[in-house]
Amino acid sequence: MTKQLIIIADNLQITNQTIERAIVNYDPEPIATMVKKCEAAGAQAIDINPGPIPLNTKEKMAFLVNTIQSATDLPIVIDTANPAAICAGLKENRKKAIINGFSLEPVKLKKILPLAKRFNVEIIGYLLHPDGHVPANAHDRLQIAVEIFKACENEGIDKNSLIIDPILPPVNWEKGPFQALEVLSVIKILPELLGFPVKTVVGLSNLTAGKGERAKKLLLERTYLPMLCASGLSMVLLNMFHHETIEIAKVCNTIISKDIFTWEEI
Amino acid sequence: MTKQLIIIADNLQITNQTIERAIVNYDPEPIATMVKKCEAAGAQAIDINPGPIPLNTKEKMAFLVNTIQSATDLPIVIDTANPAAICAGLKENRKKAIINGFSLEPVKLKKILPLAKRFNVEIIGYLLHPDGHVPANAHDRLQIAVEIFKACENEGIDKNSLIIDPILPPVNWEKGPFQALEVLSVIKILPELLGFPVKTVVGLSNLTAGKGERAKKLLLERTYLPMLCASGLSMVLLNMFHHETIEIAKVCNTIISKDIFTWEEI
Repeated sequence: MTKQLIIIADNLQITNQTIERAIVNYDPEPIATMVKKCEAAGAQAIDINPGPIPLNTKEKMAFLVNTIQSATDLPIVIDTANPAAICAGLKENRKKAIINGFSLEPVKLKKILPLAKRFNVEIIGYLLHPDGHVPANAHDRLQIAVEIFKACENEGIDKNSLIIDPILPPVNWEKGPFQALEVLSVIKILPELLGFPVKTVVGLSNLTAGKGERAKKLLLERTYLPMLCASGLSMVLLNMFHHETIEIAKVCNTIISKDIFTWEEI
Repeated sequence: MTKQLIIIADNLQITNQTIERAIVNYDPEPIATMVKKCEAAGAQAIDINPGPIPLNTKEKMAFLVNTIQSATDLPIVIDTANPAAICAGLKENRKKAIINGFSLEPVKLKKILPLAKRFNVEIIGYLLHPDGHVPANAHDRLQIAVEIFKACENEGIDKNSLIIDPILPPVNWEKGPFQALEVLSVIKILPELLGFPVKTVVGLSNLTAGKGERAKKLLLERTYLPMLCASGLSMVLLNMFHHETIEIAKVCNTIISKDIFTWEEI
């Protein structure tokens, strides 16, 4: 009754043009403003997704980490596939950080996974096939989870530093609803399979990626989020400006983590 | 991937004054209107809760069943603790009916349970202690479920005619959030425990019974409903005029029962 769903803001993305311009221009103000808005809305960690950063990779990530940590004490989640950028960010990090993330892809195992050990930070492992393909079902994901766990062990990384992302495909992919249910099963089964309360994370917006009416997407996200929560999900990436989704996330936490309920809390 | 959450309208209640007056005056029109509205809103069955019916019990239930069945072909759920009323309703029933319901309380085992056999209809069994007390946790509920199952067997009732209501207490009762989670566990475990895909039903409004702001109650119900659904709940009693809750129930069904998703469906 003490486990809480941790809400991670996914608002700091290169796909947001304000953020993109701020990174290009090394302008801290729009980033700091966004971070403070996310924190005010209930974010408990801030994901930074600056895209591939082709130019001045290290400088830009260092700038981002410094800017965010000047604006908040929340943990940062360094969300990029670029090992040099992750490394530059972690060198600047003065608070709690999470690497997002690695997979069984050989280059990620070699270049990204060791950074978790070197900087003593948590790391997200994606349940993807080594070639980057999304697994077809829960069974495949669980097999990959065992490999991910072993890879951490081989690297000398504390198992409690591993956070697993089961990979939620868009619902309008082939067998999308089936995959969404398989992800719930994986979240439920993983702690028993690996023999410890392994943490899990999902990016909720992945469910509705691609074309579709905004209102329907948000309705679908609001419906699926409590399912994730009831399955035992540890962390969720959310757009903090989706007010109704955040409301649902907070009510989920009231149900799963409170001993005594009062209407004042929600 | 074919299981659907069946939505049962809980709108036909004695606590609704229009319904109460219509019953007292044997006036079919308000009842038929309500039934048609519920069906139009997506109800797949109609619960009738006429209260204790102290006067002309049999006549009133017969009137209700006839009125409803003149307005719809949907199954009816006869929701009363009065055996004579249940019997009178079932005598009039010409379509599918469900008795709601019995428990381990001796008078219910003796007077209500046999009606399921006599009229060959489904029956809801409440996971309550024989003295009517609500169980404290999942473990107690599961023990009671085994007794309920045995009682059906002893009565010669087909196990597929049993529907189990795990009893959801109000969230603002002592340990309410804990109980809400225990109910989810019970729904998940029951089919495995009893060795067949036993059906389950929950009255969603029970979660928010008592005092509380309407908007907060609805938010809580919208959050808990997908949790119930992901746990494998078969049927839910809902107020069909709570538009946003119904929307969530339909999206739940899209996720749990569709092979292919298209945005047009929601």
